[in-house]
Amino acid sequence: MKEDIKIVKIGGNVIDNPTALRSFIEDFAKLPGPKALIHGGGKEATRLSGKLGIETQMVNGRRVTDRETLDVVTMVYAGLINKRIVALLQAAGCDAIGLCGADANVIKATRRPAVPFDYGYVGDINPTDINTAFIRNMLDNGVTPVFCAINHDGNGELLNCNADSVASAVAIACSEIAPTDLTFCFEKEGVLSDVDDPTSLIRSVNGSNYADIKNSGAISGGMLPKIDNAFAAVSKGVRSVTIKSSSKLLDDTGTKITL
Amino acid sequence: MKEDIKIVKIGGNVIDNPTALRSFIEDFAKLPGPKALIHGGGKEATRLSGKLGIETQMVNGRRVTDRETLDVVTMVYAGLINKRIVALLQAAGCDAIGLCGADANVIKATRRPAVPFDYGYVGDINPTDINTAFIRNMLDNGVTPVFCAINHDGNGELLNCNADSVASAVAIACSEIAPTDLTFCFEKEGVLSDVDDPTSLIRSVNGSNYADIKNSGAISGGMLPKIDNAFAAVSKGVRSVTIKSSSKLLDDTGTKITL
Repeated sequence: MKEDIKIVKIGGNVIDNPTALRSFIEDFAKLPGPKALIHGGGKEATRLSGKLGIETQMVNGRRVTDRETLDVVTMVYAGLINKRIVALLQAAGCDAIGLCGADANVIKATRRPAVPFDYGYVGDINPTDINTAFIRNMLDNGVTPVFCAINHDGNGELLNCNADSVASAVAIACSEIAPTDLTFCFEKEGVLSDVDDPTSLIRSVNGSNYADIKNSGAISGGMLPKIDNAFAAVSKGVRSVTIKSSSKLLDDTGTKITL
Repeated sequence: MKEDIKIVKIGGNVIDNPTALRSFIEDFAKLPGPKALIHGGGKEATRLSGKLGIETQMVNGRRVTDRETLDVVTMVYAGLINKRIVALLQAAGCDAIGLCGADANVIKATRRPAVPFDYGYVGDINPTDINTAFIRNMLDNGVTPVFCAINHDGNGELLNCNADSVASAVAIACSEIAPTDLTFCFEKEGVLSDVDDPTSLIRSVNGSNYADIKNSGAISGGMLPKIDNAFAAVSKGVRSVTIKSSSKLLDDTGTKITL
């Protein structure tokens, strides 16, 4: 494997919009070279839980995952959404393979400690717990892995993980194979100096301007952990992280985060 | 790949019984050499449909699969059951990978014609539509494919298929790689000369005794298509087909069907 690797994560808002999803998938299929996709879950799991009379409890933006909720997210993320995406990618000419972490032991996770808060069957992952040899086999054979955020603990238990963290960990692991670029696609243009003005895109965030941008107030709320996550990835070997609109995957735009 | 390949299919009654399933999985993990597992669905899809207010309609033993039902079986077969089995196999030391047909384009299916009866999103498969190169790659790397019976048409549509037929087709395709034996595991001991007497097991059915056994009345009802399916497989290159109890996977027992 000599070619650069592209890791792309799509968020729940794209998953929830069939037209946007199809358009994104066609774009993703066109990306040349070795690549992988990580998808979040969207609102389908919450809708299904509702229909089944299972209460959805979110704490700090994370889904509290009891046994019944684990079944729901496994069905929705690893079954419905993952296989829909893979079938659409195949139709678009991209030889995709849908994976949860248990498949080929590709991503092992560790159940989050019950203290200070018990999230249930929620896992955290470490880039060293990724089966890089298997990912390399897929990429060498022109197969594109599509990861949902359900992983396993190696002892028979599935664990619900955060899709942003899965994307970062996969990108860090792939950096051992070849130079790797990670792209987070979401509903906005990137990091904006005025969050209500899509034209106020900041093209580059790096070690030297980050403090100034943060102090200006442009990076706040939900964007803060995203940027921290991005810096963590580049500090561990990922060449660049880009945050951009899911409708502009093939355009040279968005906010690029580098060291 | 020089070693013989073992293809095993487990039926819905095992899937529905957590204790029997765990015990079967431990046995399957112990089977030496290259192997693959195909699983049916059990009653979980019908239960989930019921909770969601979706009517289940069975015609000739096949589930009529409208759009909503396709979502249910994709969630249950490709998500919940497939990933549970893979996680348990990993815990038992078997490096399994769960697959629907869209994954790595491993099994393409053709939607069944709407005449004389429209089953909806139901597909039939042809052994030539199986990606043998991908299966060979997995087996060569010590990875055990676990197939659910959801496949794709190559145009972005998932299709619900019959798990027995998937097992036969996979075994026929694997026969191109190495000598392949197919085992159907179910709740009975095999073909019985008296269906109510488990000790009346017929150990061998072949081209020369089949007519006599059939005329004796020992093979009737649901067993007839199973045997026809088995003969179809052996006539297309599968070395042997065995029908046996899921609790005796590792024992030399059951009914062996050969040419």
